[in-house]
Amino acid sequence: MKTKRYNVAVVGATGAVGTEMLRVLQQHRFPIKRLRLLASSRSKGRRIPFNGSTYAVEELQNRSFEGIDVALFSAGAVRSLEFGPEAVRRGAVVVDNSSAFRMAEDVPLVVPEVNPHALKSHQGLIANPNCSTIIMLVPLAPLHRAAGLKRIIVSTYQSVSGAGKEAMDELWNQTRGVFVTDPPSPKKFPKQIAFNVIPHVDVFMEDGSTREEWKMMVETKKILDPKIKLTATCVRVPVFVGHSEAVNIEFEKPLSAEEAREILREAPGCLVVDKPESGGYVTPVECVGDFATFISRIREDATVENGLSMWIVSDNLRKGAALNTVQIAEALINRGLLQKAA
Amino acid sequence: MKTKRYNVAVVGATGAVGTEMLRVLQQHRFPIKRLRLLASSRSKGRRIPFNGSTYAVEELQNRSFEGIDVALFSAGAVRSLEFGPEAVRRGAVVVDNSSAFRMAEDVPLVVPEVNPHALKSHQGLIANPNCSTIIMLVPLAPLHRAAGLKRIIVSTYQSVSGAGKEAMDELWNQTRGVFVTDPPSPKKFPKQIAFNVIPHVDVFMEDGSTREEWKMMVETKKILDPKIKLTATCVRVPVFVGHSEAVNIEFEKPLSAEEAREILREAPGCLVVDKPESGGYVTPVECVGDFATFISRIREDATVENGLSMWIVSDNLRKGAALNTVQIAEALINRGLLQKAA
Repeated sequence: MKTKRYNVAVVGATGAVGTEMLRVLQQHRFPIKRLRLLASSRSKGRRIPFNGSTYAVEELQNRSFEGIDVALFSAGAVRSLEFGPEAVRRGAVVVDNSSAFRMAEDVPLVVPEVNPHALKSHQGLIANPNCSTIIMLVPLAPLHRAAGLKRIIVSTYQSVSGAGKEAMDELWNQTRGVFVTDPPSPKKFPKQIAFNVIPHVDVFMEDGSTREEWKMMVETKKILDPKIKLTATCVRVPVFVGHSEAVNIEFEKPLSAEEAREILREAPGCLVVDKPESGGYVTPVECVGDFATFISRIREDATVENGLSMWIVSDNLRKGAALNTVQIAEALINRGLLQKAA
Repeated sequence: MKTKRYNVAVVGATGAVGTEMLRVLQQHRFPIKRLRLLASSRSKGRRIPFNGSTYAVEELQNRSFEGIDVALFSAGAVRSLEFGPEAVRRGAVVVDNSSAFRMAEDVPLVVPEVNPHALKSHQGLIANPNCSTIIMLVPLAPLHRAAGLKRIIVSTYQSVSGAGKEAMDELWNQTRGVFVTDPPSPKKFPKQIAFNVIPHVDVFMEDGSTREEWKMMVETKKILDPKIKLTATCVRVPVFVGHSEAVNIEFEKPLSAEEAREILREAPGCLVVDKPESGGYVTPVECVGDFATFISRIREDATVENGLSMWIVSDNLRKGAALNTVQIAEALINRGLLQKAA
């Protein structure tokens, strides 16, 4: 039987996440018939290697989506809002990595290990959750099924790559600036990020929380269960790639640390690295380029009934973005949910 | 009236905290009659400037404490255990920055803004709490008095200086190593600390928590109230100086974010920097060298009854160690609790 192949567009192909999307598409041997790399006019004509060939970057336009089966968007919410619906109108299924459509009622918000069933009702647009939400829910979903998540308190340690390539350059150049005593000047970040931490990711909202903190709350409710209570503090740390999260959970039912470890050892996308000794846990630099979400430091929390704490780390560009987007496209194919197939 | 002056010994005078102790003693114009700088034999003879003079570092020995009124120890728990009781036997009052005596029943564990009354019953030894505990309790103590702390969930973002000068050198050299693609080799830390975070401070305990996490719990109970429940996740971040903490609190009684801000604006040692806008919060690099504990991002947490979240930052070498130690010595003087006074 011949494998069906699809016309794929990558929107934002030159960005931090777009670059990772191309890597994941190659590594997963995604069944591509024709590949179209789209970006702003600034990147037009840039040549990008893919699977032994070289592709020229084209300028993103409405007609870019003619004949496209699936379009993977990671070019920011403004571009998604402008071009996403146009792509759907032209027959493409859009998997969008921006925040543009995540909370829209008719748009499934999907982590394939968690709620693939939500894809069934898609109307052309599927949203990829926020990186911090994805990374947290991959291990928390199976624990929710086992013991019921009641309340989550999460503090994040988010790498700069979540803010794009320029943010990575800023950390690099600012750090170098510290070494040559050249005063570092924040641009992409509101304060110095080199050798510092900033308790501020995305914009502030009226209630004093940031949009990133709000996203973790509303997206968790939409993906997993509206009854779950979540409060987050989102913090940027001087790490290039890899988000970490210190998570404290109150469950409905008792769940021991060892039971949680057993569940997570079997759970899709999860890798338990958890020995209570020096080095017996993961750190972000060790997870770069990896597809798994790593769970360490699983401990019972005696300060609350049915309490557990854990440390979760994953590559925010991979599982937190590019990988999850490609996995959604794969799940659409596997479930026969791509509208056009050649 | 002539100010009484005291013979002061600084033990561990060449270390990261010892160096800060000397700075604080100068800045506070501590009433010193004679100053003795003590360290291991390695540092013997090193000359250190202080108040316009230069002092030679002497080797730490039992007889170093003859005639000393107050000895400020910051040379690790092993040296405190060996020399602390000897210093007391020779008539000195010891303020110890190590963990050696903190939980001993007859040793007051003191944050001067929080529980100065505990000094009254001292028997020669007074312990300085762990840096993360001090920084947290300076703002939490007045809130406890107002609304009763019931449960605290804290995630820390601890700078490398908490692990001493060698740890600071390791971050510096390892970061430089990343720039020249010279593989960084962890020594002081169990894993790479440059551009990374490590969920591990101090040694692991049997229950899977680290000693640092345990310290925050037991010290909070000893200093403030044994009824308070606390669970911590302690994480090392690539910051040189300045500890940050994301704290979530459940109070006994209602306390709005604005009420908390009002209380903290008046609280000793506290500085509220809290505007819900870009830059309207503090980060560790901004707090280096400062005596205050900074509180930002005070928010109501609707996921629990009487919940509040906040972001706390302070210079771990100052308020977290050297400053608190000197403040204890000052409180002893002010309350007439130094045994010998010249």
